Amino acid sequence: MLELVSEHACHGGVQRFYKHDAQATGLPMRFSVFIPPHAGDAKLPALFYLAGLTCTEETFAIKAGAQRVAAELGLVLVAPDTSPRGANVPGETDAWDFGAGAGFYLDATQQPWATHYRMESYIHELRELVVRELPVDGGRIGIFGHSMGGHGALTLALRRPELFKSVSAFAPIAAPSQCPWGRKAFTGYLGTDEFTWAEHDATVLMAHRCTPFPNGILIDQGLGDKFLHEQLKPELFETACAAASQPLTLRRHAGYDHGYYFIATFIEDHLRWHAPQL
Amino acid sequence: MLELVSEHACHGGVQRFYKHDAQATGLPMRFSVFIPPHAGDAKLPALFYLAGLTCTEETFAIKAGAQRVAAELGLVLVAPDTSPRGANVPGETDAWDFGAGAGFYLDATQQPWATHYRMESYIHELRELVVRELPVDGGRIGIFGHSMGGHGALTLALRRPELFKSVSAFAPIAAPSQCPWGRKAFTGYLGTDEFTWAEHDATVLMAHRCTPFPNGILIDQGLGDKFLHEQLKPELFETACAAASQPLTLRRHAGYDHGYYFIATFIEDHLRWHAPQL
Repeated sequence: MLELVSEHACHGGVQRFYKHDAQATGLPMRFSVFIPPHAGDAKLPALFYLAGLTCTEETFAIKAGAQRVAAELGLVLVAPDTSPRGANVPGETDAWDFGAGAGFYLDATQQPWATHYRMESYIHELRELVVRELPVDGGRIGIFGHSMGGHGALTLALRRPELFKSVSAFAPIAAPSQCPWGRKAFTGYLGTDEFTWAEHDATVLMAHRCTPFPNGILIDQGLGDKFLHEQLKPELFETACAAASQPLTLRRHAGYDHGYYFIATFIEDHLRWHAPQL
Repeated sequence: MLELVSEHACHGGVQRFYKHDAQATGLPMRFSVFIPPHAGDAKLPALFYLAGLTCTEETFAIKAGAQRVAAELGLVLVAPDTSPRGANVPGETDAWDFGAGAGFYLDATQQPWATHYRMESYIHELRELVVRELPVDGGRIGIFGHSMGGHGALTLALRRPELFKSVSAFAPIAAPSQCPWGRKAFTGYLGTDEFTWAEHDATVLMAHRCTPFPNGILIDQGLGDKFLHEQLKPELFETACAAASQPLTLRRHAGYDHGYYFIATFIEDHLRWHAPQL
C-alpha cells in the first residue's frame, strides 16, 4: 500500500513523495517520484535514480533539477532512499559512510545488518511496486545514480541487464573493492571474504561480461572532485569496459566537484541519453 | 572584505558562497552568487533574488535551478540571507515568521530589533559591494523574490526605482499591512503606528506612484498555494497597479503550491523576462 506523503505541481507534472511498508527491509520506506504530464491511461518509461552517501529520497528531487527535461521527454523519475531507516542496529548512525544513509544497494549477509539492510532486494521490490501502482511500463526502465548510487546503478544493471534497458552514472564508486568507502561497507555488510564482494563491484562484474549494454554506458566525472583518486577510480572501470568490449563514454570535466551543482549541470545530457533507449 | 566560503563549477560558470562583515547589520552576513561564463573584464547585468521566511542564502542556489538559464543569458545571480544571524536578540528564534530568517527586508525602528535588523540597508550595501568586488554592472540590476522576498523585491524596487531596472515576484506578500505575517512583522520591527508601515507595503506604495516600471511587473502565483488568500493577496496589488497605470502581468497557475517546485517551474520565464530589460 502506497501512502502519499506530499505532492507538488512541477513543470506541468507532479512531484510526489510516498511511504510504504517494504518487505525487503521489513521497515517503512520512502521514495520520490516525478510523473510528467501524460494521457490518462499511458504507461511511461521510467528512470531510477540512486543517490549517494548521506542522501535521502528528497535529495534528487530538490537539487538535480531533472523535472523540466523529464516533463519534456515524458519520463517518470523514481528516487528511493539510500538505506533503511529506523532499523535500530547498534551504531548505524555513528558514521556517515556506513549504516543509515549508506546502504550501498546490496543485501547484507552479516548480522546485525542482514535483517534490514537489504537495499538491492528493496530496489527490485520498488521497481515492481511502481510498475503495479503508477503509470510505469515495466519493460522500459533505466537506472542511474551518483557516487554510492552510481555504484548501485552500475552493479544493479550489470547483475540484471534484462531489467534495465539503459544505465549511466555521475562520479560513481567504480571499483569499491579497491577504495576505503567500498572496503569498509563490504566488510561490514558482506564480511571479510573478498570472494563475496565480486558480485557488487562494477569493475569486477564487467570483467566477467561481454558487451552487456551494447548501446553504451555514460559516466560523467568532475576533475575537481576531491574523492576522484582515492574513492571513485573510474579509470579501473574504463579498463574493464575496454576488456569486455563494452562501449563507455566517460566524460571528464575540468573544475567540477562531487556535488549537485555538477549533477545539475549535466543532468539534461543524461536524460536525453536515456530517453531514446527506453 | 569578501571571504569566499565555497565555490562550485556549475553550467560553465561558478556558484559561490561568500561571507563578509556588514556595516548595515553590524554582523557577518552570507550571500550566494552565480557568475556565468564571461570574458575576463566584462561587467555583467545582475539579478538579486530575495528569499522567503526560514530560507537562507543557500535556498535559491540549491532549489530554484536558475543557473542554467543565467549561464545562457549571461546574468549574475545574487541571493542574500533573509535576516541577520547571531544578533542574540531575546526571542529571535522563537517564531519562524519573525526574527531570525524573517527580516522582511526593512530597517527596524523598534528596539531591541533596530540595532541589527536593518535588511533594507543591507541589501543596498550588498548591491554596492557586488558592483565593487564582482563582475557586476551597477547600472544593470534587477530584483525578484519569493513570498516575504517577493514583498522585499516589490517594496525595494518601488522605493528606489532608479536603482532596479526590472522587478518580478513569485507568490509575494503583496499587501503586508493587511495580512497576519505582515502585521506581526511590522508591529515588531516598526511599531504600532501604521502610518510608518506604508513605506514597506507594495500595495500602498503603488497607490502613490504613477507607472514606476513602464516595462511592467511580472508576478507568478500558484492557485494551490495555501497562503494565497490569508497572507499573499495579490489581487490587492493588482488593483493598486491598475489605479497607478502600472502594467502588471499576474499569472495564476492552477495546482501550483508555495514551494520551490513552483518556483523551479517558472524560473526560466522570469530570467528571460528580466534579461532584455537589463
